Amino acid sequence: MDDTPAWAPESIRQARADLSRLIEPGDLLGSLTVSALGAEPALDLIRSGTGPSDRVQQQVGEAAETAGLTARQRKLAPALERWRTRRGQTGHRRMLDSLRRRGGGLLIPEDAAWPRQLHDLGAAQPVALWFRVAPGESDPYIEAPARLPHPARSVAVVGSREMTDYGAQVAWETARQLAAHGVSVVSGGAYGIDAAAHRGSLEGADEEQRPAVAVLAGGVDRLYPAGNERLLHAVMDRGIIFSEMAPGSAPTRHRFLQRNRLIAALAAATVVVEARWRSGALSTAHHAMDIGRPVGAVPGSVHSASSAGCHRLLRHTPAQLVTDAADVMELVAADAAGVLAAPDGHPAPEGASKPLGESATDGLGDIDRRIYDALPVRSATTPSRLSEVAGLPIPHIFGALTRLERKKLVRRTTAGWGRAGYHPAPQSSG
Amino acid sequence: MDDTPAWAPESIRQARADLSRLIEPGDLLGSLTVSALGAEPALDLIRSGTGPSDRVQQQVGEAAETAGLTARQRKLAPALERWRTRRGQTGHRRMLDSLRRRGGGLLIPEDAAWPRQLHDLGAAQPVALWFRVAPGESDPYIEAPARLPHPARSVAVVGSREMTDYGAQVAWETARQLAAHGVSVVSGGAYGIDAAAHRGSLEGADEEQRPAVAVLAGGVDRLYPAGNERLLHAVMDRGIIFSEMAPGSAPTRHRFLQRNRLIAALAAATVVVEARWRSGALSTAHHAMDIGRPVGAVPGSVHSASSAGCHRLLRHTPAQLVTDAADVMELVAADAAGVLAAPDGHPAPEGASKPLGESATDGLGDIDRRIYDALPVRSATTPSRLSEVAGLPIPHIFGALTRLERKKLVRRTTAGWGRAGYHPAPQSSG
Repeated sequence: MDDTPAWAPESIRQARADLSRLIEPGDLLGSLTVSALGAEPALDLIRSGTGPSDRVQQQVGEAAETAGLTARQRKLAPALERWRTRRGQTGHRRMLDSLRRRGGGLLIPEDAAWPRQLHDLGAAQPVALWFRVAPGESDPYIEAPARLPHPARSVAVVGSREMTDYGAQVAWETARQLAAHGVSVVSGGAYGIDAAAHRGSLEGADEEQRPAVAVLAGGVDRLYPAGNERLLHAVMDRGIIFSEMAPGSAPTRHRFLQRNRLIAALAAATVVVEARWRSGALSTAHHAMDIGRPVGAVPGSVHSASSAGCHRLLRHTPAQLVTDAADVMELVAADAAGVLAAPDGHPAPEGASKPLGESATDGLGDIDRRIYDALPVRSATTPSRLSEVAGLPIPHIFGALTRLERKKLVRRTTAGWGRAGYHPAPQSSG
Repeated sequence: MDDTPAWAPESIRQARADLSRLIEPGDLLGSLTVSALGAEPALDLIRSGTGPSDRVQQQVGEAAETAGLTARQRKLAPALERWRTRRGQTGHRRMLDSLRRRGGGLLIPEDAAWPRQLHDLGAAQPVALWFRVAPGESDPYIEAPARLPHPARSVAVVGSREMTDYGAQVAWETARQLAAHGVSVVSGGAYGIDAAAHRGSLEGADEEQRPAVAVLAGGVDRLYPAGNERLLHAVMDRGIIFSEMAPGSAPTRHRFLQRNRLIAALAAATVVVEARWRSGALSTAHHAMDIGRPVGAVPGSVHSASSAGCHRLLRHTPAQLVTDAADVMELVAADAAGVLAAPDGHPAPEGASKPLGESATDGLGDIDRRIYDALPVRSATTPSRLSEVAGLPIPHIFGALTRLERKKLVRRTTAGWGRAGYHPAPQSSG
């Protein structure tokens, strides 16, 4: 697969395969270290057994400060101890090879096929993404890209394990109709609403469509829960399953919660069909809101405990009430005009850069203009400082920076976010 | 009752009794004529059979222009023709007397007991309000004031005639709990949700409380619909029924829709329990929003046609999702801080007027300040022009003007709204 420039060199893939084993999901300093140093140097540092040089600590520390980590969280020495606990479990070349024969592989941010919607997670972007499809005639690396959820035409349909007949019907029917309209349905492969959503999406899509995406909390070699094994095989027949955990990893509570951020980030919108007052599905909704994605919630009886979490979202968050697939499509369309506006997943070409000054910010929405105005003219800043200056919550900041970046009005560097043109050290954010 | 200054002179009451017969609800030029000329001169003009003098046309026309009526709608001559069609049906002194023996009477804006929350209707405020309580030892004019819905502790609970068991339960239980917390429950006396709400409120309140208020579309002597006669008698036993229509008037479709604005205006918040996609209950919700009152809607199954109107409100209007009486109380509390802030229903005394200038507007909310700032300094303006200048929708304008008027920061005259202190011709809006 490294015979085409669309795929990153195999050495980087192998390094990230190992790193996905060493660094737990949501370990922000881990992913920041990998993106600041590069995958191979980061892995070498972990393997070396020596402490970080002052230069390396400074480089990673700056990136971590920009991402809002505390001074304590920015320290590499204790983090290296943490990452070295599984040092014996590296060497994933053989795992990559054997998984490839079973329809699996590893996507990494350096690949052209990397789902660019994951960039919105910022420092919480996964180190790599393991995938698996049903083994067939073609190579999984040829098969996978066509099955990725489209950044603007994908919806996460999630909910509680304890569902009612009502929730089962709504999840199935909504997913079925979404799939029939060519929308990828992303869910977590769990019992209850997740399973109903996967089933509905497989029912609704025709042969040409890529209906189903399941994101697992454990390795893609473990089809968990066991009772959904057949369903997950059906997902792999026509869709794809993902995990940021290396094969062999067990699903833990921490990994379930971290997994939810991937579901939220892979989909253009998240819909909660049924959720109890305290439900993991609410965490998926909050992850989606944190990165500025629209969230829908299905109403139900005020007497149903399985709808209490949905009503909670509708009362206390910007979540929109949705009653059917048409309502969900409105959410997606609204979002497509915003965060995911670039056509076909390709950012605007460099030459499309607008001139700076008053005219460059003409036509910006209120929030984007407010955040642009809050950016320092000759230096960089952090999203949390921007949030304070602009007086807007963090989720707005990320969404707006992404839009402004696409318009070439702002740039992100290791020092943070700044206005394009004035920035001391521009560097690609990819 | 005219031996105490709390009650307006009997002659005005009789005039308004006749006027309530001659002028249909929602006839804005009618109520504007009555408030511009005074009740007795207005009635004399209608009775006279002659056209309006230039001076009278000008006086009424200016008030009507301020209220936003078109040039055509402001013409008195054709309106007088309209109001004179029922000229033979005046002479309500006897009706007032006989109704009084049966527990009924007439409240008019000149009475201290007039529900001041009706002022928020502006030009759509009714000419008078007929009431009825169960006849007892004390005079209805002594009994009625204690049974009026408290401006800050009253909730309209409304919905469709075609309700489900679910809607019946939620309406009954919500009203019961509201009444148990000393909240008056206002509804329309109809079958379905209205009846369930009245029943729940009667169940929940103890003897000392004034739980139930029914606003009818026909005269208070006609307990419509017949199947709810017993229920409406129960309402009169402990609460009160209202109508702006004179006794003997039939409920018509037009009067039902107009009646809904009174339900919305009498209550501090409106809750829709069940409503079909096109339901009269939605008109009550929209009337409430038009005058800046909070609206709640109860969610239900997305498969229930009886919840479709509630979901419609929740998707497309500022209506808040409410699941129980506690959620409704939050709506009311939020509102109590705004429109209905004056304690005990009494406007601030004249001496409480704040000095003008910067300090006078300190502590105003964003919207109120924006509207205050949009007011011309040395002249008067109309709500629709204010809406343009301030860039805020009309419902915000009315709510804010009412609050600002209460704070003595703005004054309303026949020429329109202006800042207090600079206004050329101050005049009471009562």
